[in-house]
Amino acid sequence: MAYFRENIQKMTGYEPGFQPKTTDVVKLNTNENPYPPSPKVIEAIKNLKPEQLRRYPQPLGDSFREAAAKVLDVKPENIICANGGDDLLNMAIRAICDENRPLAYPTPTYSLYPELARIQNCPAIEIPFDGEFNLPAKLTTTDAALTIVCNPNAPSGTFIPCRELRQLAEEIKGVLLIDEAYADFADGNCLELAKTLDNVIILRSMSKGYSLAGMRFGFGIASETMIKGLMKVKDSYNVDTVSIASATAAIEDQKYFKNNVEKIKAERKNLTEQLIMLGFEVQQSQTNFVFAKPLKARAIDIYDKLKEKNIYVRYWAYTDIKDKLRVTVGTPEQNQKLINALKDLIAEV
Amino acid sequence: MAYFRENIQKMTGYEPGFQPKTTDVVKLNTNENPYPPSPKVIEAIKNLKPEQLRRYPQPLGDSFREAAAKVLDVKPENIICANGGDDLLNMAIRAICDENRPLAYPTPTYSLYPELARIQNCPAIEIPFDGEFNLPAKLTTTDAALTIVCNPNAPSGTFIPCRELRQLAEEIKGVLLIDEAYADFADGNCLELAKTLDNVIILRSMSKGYSLAGMRFGFGIASETMIKGLMKVKDSYNVDTVSIASATAAIEDQKYFKNNVEKIKAERKNLTEQLIMLGFEVQQSQTNFVFAKPLKARAIDIYDKLKEKNIYVRYWAYTDIKDKLRVTVGTPEQNQKLINALKDLIAEV
Repeated sequence: MAYFRENIQKMTGYEPGFQPKTTDVVKLNTNENPYPPSPKVIEAIKNLKPEQLRRYPQPLGDSFREAAAKVLDVKPENIICANGGDDLLNMAIRAICDENRPLAYPTPTYSLYPELARIQNCPAIEIPFDGEFNLPAKLTTTDAALTIVCNPNAPSGTFIPCRELRQLAEEIKGVLLIDEAYADFADGNCLELAKTLDNVIILRSMSKGYSLAGMRFGFGIASETMIKGLMKVKDSYNVDTVSIASATAAIEDQKYFKNNVEKIKAERKNLTEQLIMLGFEVQQSQTNFVFAKPLKARAIDIYDKLKEKNIYVRYWAYTDIKDKLRVTVGTPEQNQKLINALKDLIAEV
Repeated sequence: MAYFRENIQKMTGYEPGFQPKTTDVVKLNTNENPYPPSPKVIEAIKNLKPEQLRRYPQPLGDSFREAAAKVLDVKPENIICANGGDDLLNMAIRAICDENRPLAYPTPTYSLYPELARIQNCPAIEIPFDGEFNLPAKLTTTDAALTIVCNPNAPSGTFIPCRELRQLAEEIKGVLLIDEAYADFADGNCLELAKTLDNVIILRSMSKGYSLAGMRFGFGIASETMIKGLMKVKDSYNVDTVSIASATAAIEDQKYFKNNVEKIKAERKNLTEQLIMLGFEVQQSQTNFVFAKPLKARAIDIYDKLKEKNIYVRYWAYTDIKDKLRVTVGTPEQNQKLINALKDLIAEV
């Protein structure tokens, strides 16, 4: 007997973006927030008592659920905590998909979705976006048990209006999960759909807008029925005492959060303009990264040469996106270093 | 179309032990360590920089893998980090079991195993222990893809000699996972099997012996091939920056750990003797809890009456164990409060 299931044996596994060990680099490859989390997070961590570490955490992360419910104007029962947004994706796919219940999503998108389908051994129905990243009409006719739309989408940074997603949710028979990991940086979001439609799950992350990538905290918002179903496949204690305290402090400090997001949006505009001046074709971004196609050199060459200068951006060798680079919006200083390096590189070629 | 899979719809979901909100209780129901974690853990947490929180954590938790490898005399490549031991159980079942690849385990044991089988929709083959909790011979003939033996076992607290588990691992065609969550309190462990046999996974937890239940950190030890397979189903960043730092500091402080464990073992002996004097039948425990059968009153009545006095122990209404209580070994003061309360209760009935 093989030790592992056939679908697992065949997998190579998801490759997360490179995490350099030193801090002496310009790291614009995994969409982290360039600013530290709210000082109230640091305070919450320092105030934890040793007694709280030896005890099991709140199984449902109730402190966070209550704080988030206030901010989002929902009930705590509409919220499920997750060990990062990826944990919520896992829960949804485990609860909803199997060999006879497919997963569908438009492509290109977050490259974890097909990996999770492989682990769950469910069919993955991939519907290509058009060149403008409009919602593909075909998504309404897939008969998928679960449809995921990343909105704003990664790696394109584009945004689909909520009325279109509402129509999709109303037309499909299965569940629609809207992955709003980047919604903090967008002009709108689809929270309203989770409040009004039974089959919609909204995914949010504390990694990007709230600068807590290192803490692993995401959450889902949905009808109580939907949340109860997801709870059945949740790990008993999936979020820990420190991450609950950190995420709670972070979401309660809306002033810090909003100010931080505004700084990143302003810098995104600046970075986009500079890249265009350097001969890149850049999607209008609603996220904390830009998706840029170099017109004067190959994306892979730019990626490699930036890496030699300790500047990290993200590149994928997939056919549909191998002519582009995804660049996280950094601090003004980091972005300037990138732009200066690009100027030199483009002069060379 | 139903939103959820049929196996999920039928589930009620795992019920973790009750977590009271106030700290003004004697909490002996979820096998937490009564002593706080090493002061070095607190120091490690206080020394974390905000910069570390905004960045993604080490995907594989390498700092911990290196520290644990030294303590256990294995290579870092033989270790996989988990968001609590439950996360490792989940990874093993997802990588190894499905509808045609059953899970097997002796019963009574950790009540999460059957829940995880239900989520994965794989057959669960349950082989009852005999009255002395010896390893059931039938486990060798189940044809299970994955066999789990909790050793020392929960809730019995009993220990199976490693030569018997070696023989089991050698005779079965599938994988043997030995759940050593409580091994820190036992006279021996089966680490040697993971070093010499390809099909053995050892599970360890930082929740019990290292007082880090609130941090969610467990790990697996196995051959490199086995670890690589498990990594494929691991969440990309399943453990966070703070828990990696905490678990690393905890496992490096072996002196604090050993001293702590010795205190609990001494108190376990004392608690066992006192319970016997009060008319309980008590299994000789190799864990940080005792499994005790009251001979003079019903277990459920004692459980209820202790709860009224803010003393929490664990009771299950399952046929094979409903005549017993599981009591975590607390501090001498906590245990004395329990004994005093029991004396009063037994005088009443």
